[in-house]
Amino acid sequence: MSRDVFIAGAAMTPFGRHDTRSMQDLAQAAVLGALADADQNRIQAFYNANVYGGMVLGQVLMRDLGITGPALYNVENACASGATAVHLACQALRLGLYDTVLVWGVEQLTRLGGGTIPLQRNDYKTELYAAQGMTLPTVYAMRGSRYLHERGETAEILARIAVKNRAHGARNPYAQQRKEVTVEEVLNSRPVAEPLTLLQCCPSQVDGAAALVLTTVKPASARRPVRVLGSAVQSGHLEAGCDDILDAEITARTARLAYEEAGIGPQDVGVVELHDAFTIAELLYYEALGLCGKGGSADMLRRGDTALGGRVPVNPSGGLLAKGHPLGATGVAQMVEITWQLQGRAEGRQVDGARIGLTQCTGGGIAGVDHAASSVHILGV
Amino acid sequence: MSRDVFIAGAAMTPFGRHDTRSMQDLAQAAVLGALADADQNRIQAFYNANVYGGMVLGQVLMRDLGITGPALYNVENACASGATAVHLACQALRLGLYDTVLVWGVEQLTRLGGGTIPLQRNDYKTELYAAQGMTLPTVYAMRGSRYLHERGETAEILARIAVKNRAHGARNPYAQQRKEVTVEEVLNSRPVAEPLTLLQCCPSQVDGAAALVLTTVKPASARRPVRVLGSAVQSGHLEAGCDDILDAEITARTARLAYEEAGIGPQDVGVVELHDAFTIAELLYYEALGLCGKGGSADMLRRGDTALGGRVPVNPSGGLLAKGHPLGATGVAQMVEITWQLQGRAEGRQVDGARIGLTQCTGGGIAGVDHAASSVHILGV
Repeated sequence: MSRDVFIAGAAMTPFGRHDTRSMQDLAQAAVLGALADADQNRIQAFYNANVYGGMVLGQVLMRDLGITGPALYNVENACASGATAVHLACQALRLGLYDTVLVWGVEQLTRLGGGTIPLQRNDYKTELYAAQGMTLPTVYAMRGSRYLHERGETAEILARIAVKNRAHGARNPYAQQRKEVTVEEVLNSRPVAEPLTLLQCCPSQVDGAAALVLTTVKPASARRPVRVLGSAVQSGHLEAGCDDILDAEITARTARLAYEEAGIGPQDVGVVELHDAFTIAELLYYEALGLCGKGGSADMLRRGDTALGGRVPVNPSGGLLAKGHPLGATGVAQMVEITWQLQGRAEGRQVDGARIGLTQCTGGGIAGVDHAASSVHILGV
Repeated sequence: MSRDVFIAGAAMTPFGRHDTRSMQDLAQAAVLGALADADQNRIQAFYNANVYGGMVLGQVLMRDLGITGPALYNVENACASGATAVHLACQALRLGLYDTVLVWGVEQLTRLGGGTIPLQRNDYKTELYAAQGMTLPTVYAMRGSRYLHERGETAEILARIAVKNRAHGARNPYAQQRKEVTVEEVLNSRPVAEPLTLLQCCPSQVDGAAALVLTTVKPASARRPVRVLGSAVQSGHLEAGCDDILDAEITARTARLAYEEAGIGPQDVGVVELHDAFTIAELLYYEALGLCGKGGSADMLRRGDTALGGRVPVNPSGGLLAKGHPLGATGVAQMVEITWQLQGRAEGRQVDGARIGLTQCTGGGIAGVDHAASSVHILGV
């Protein structure tokens, strides 16, 4: 009963400091890019994903393009905002409410003056966490320490994630940080929250936008049509509880729903863009996404399975660590990257032969421990 | 192919100053009220509508109720936020993605210190409008002046809207301002923007929440089941352009879509909750919604058609003018009121015999002239 959803167009701005560009400039560049890429512009609804931009932001951003009239939905779900917007778009398309829609995500974090605490409101726990120094870096640092302890690893294994993703990012013109680093450089960079050092944390002083045209009309272009095979959103806790903070339960649950809808399993996935906001996150998500068994993430990384040229390259774009993490844009940009990968358009960082790709975002508020959002998408050609 | 959507439960907090209650308190009261009203709690997804509350607000608000796990969508569309969330919920229900979902809207404006300008960001036009004094009251005042000029009316006709809706609100325990007023009192209240006086503007120093349980499973309760017959969202300009600022084009367009989906016309509507943020708005929306012909709004009001006891009572709850306008909550609260009206549960302000009710929200940013959102819903028993 439900229709196929195709990605007809994909575009993004480079992520980075865009001091001379407004949010309008960024969002419009991505939207016009996706429209040009799709070679069509009969859009029936628009979805804007953003965290910090303010009221009716989507309408404000598109106004000067003359895009005004159709339904426009402003969607927020922290780090999963962009993916949640795509999920809602897929719902409407599958229902047949629309034939073609456009989803974009945008964020301009460099103008906020750094830090997100002042903009998180109305929550006694957020204030409590902040007063205790419990912010996202410290929450992930605790998971990192536990991982090293439980698995008998040293901080080198964390650093290897940064080395891999930053090597990928160096090949991606859309990435903010395009410099290869060594394990030593990672470990010797400024400590943030032990065991995490600066180069193990994604840059948050970053601006950018990404956009997708989604349609139920099979694209006529010569490129291989990319289909959305699975799309899931869930909420919950970042980890299952104090019993096991290495159990990324919300992510595993969301992934199960997406695999189920797609009718595939983790072994079928050929390329992944996942939410490596901190190095430890990527290791935990290998396991949560089923890319390896529980406890297998360190070996998987060491074998090179997840590097470009490996069995299932993870974050060929450089990931959040190198590409940057402009919140609302991130989930959409992950799908732009996978679309390009599946169509053989990822110049300089192309994964060979992948037919199925997966994207994953899991985030929350300032600490996010108990109010997280997660989204997993599976795309295929 | 698409399923019927029923309103299984409806609840709201009184609108007003809730100095000792947090946003959590307000949202949870409405959500628990709707769940109790629905006599069931197997909810598969949650939709939170809010403008000013911050990141992953829905997850933060529900956390301490133990509501964490299912998909949760944070939706924003200015004054139409709540109605947009209901619209998205209806999409997913009609698709069959979920059987039962919960939508709530909440806002706590009294803690913002008044005024919305500091929270509107990233828009050169907003800054330009603000510097010129072009805010929503002045935009509506211009429409009011034009209406009086074009239609050969005096300010009394505007005041009559305030008199009617405040008389309705005096009968509604959920309304913030429960005092009847006279035409003279309205006209002699503090000038805001000529011809609008204070009692012609909705109170914006207000807190509140409203919630609905929506389901595709026909409710088993003894009450008449209320169905969502039509649900539309559009974006655009508050008016068509300088040619005719009395043409509420976006609202008329949204209403057409909702009528079309419901398979009914304006003549079938027995009760209306519409967006009377300012008195002039209600007169324009009579015409935009087709409740009367173009130019017929003043006579319709004078005849008493839209008062309780009239042909098609408008804003029996008191509307935004008396009930208050906590942005994210408003659209949901309108549907709570219509549900109660259609089920004969609107104590003290019951409209007799209405089988079909309509709700309408149209809003935008600080001036909103060229980046508005509109939503119309049609409910029936």
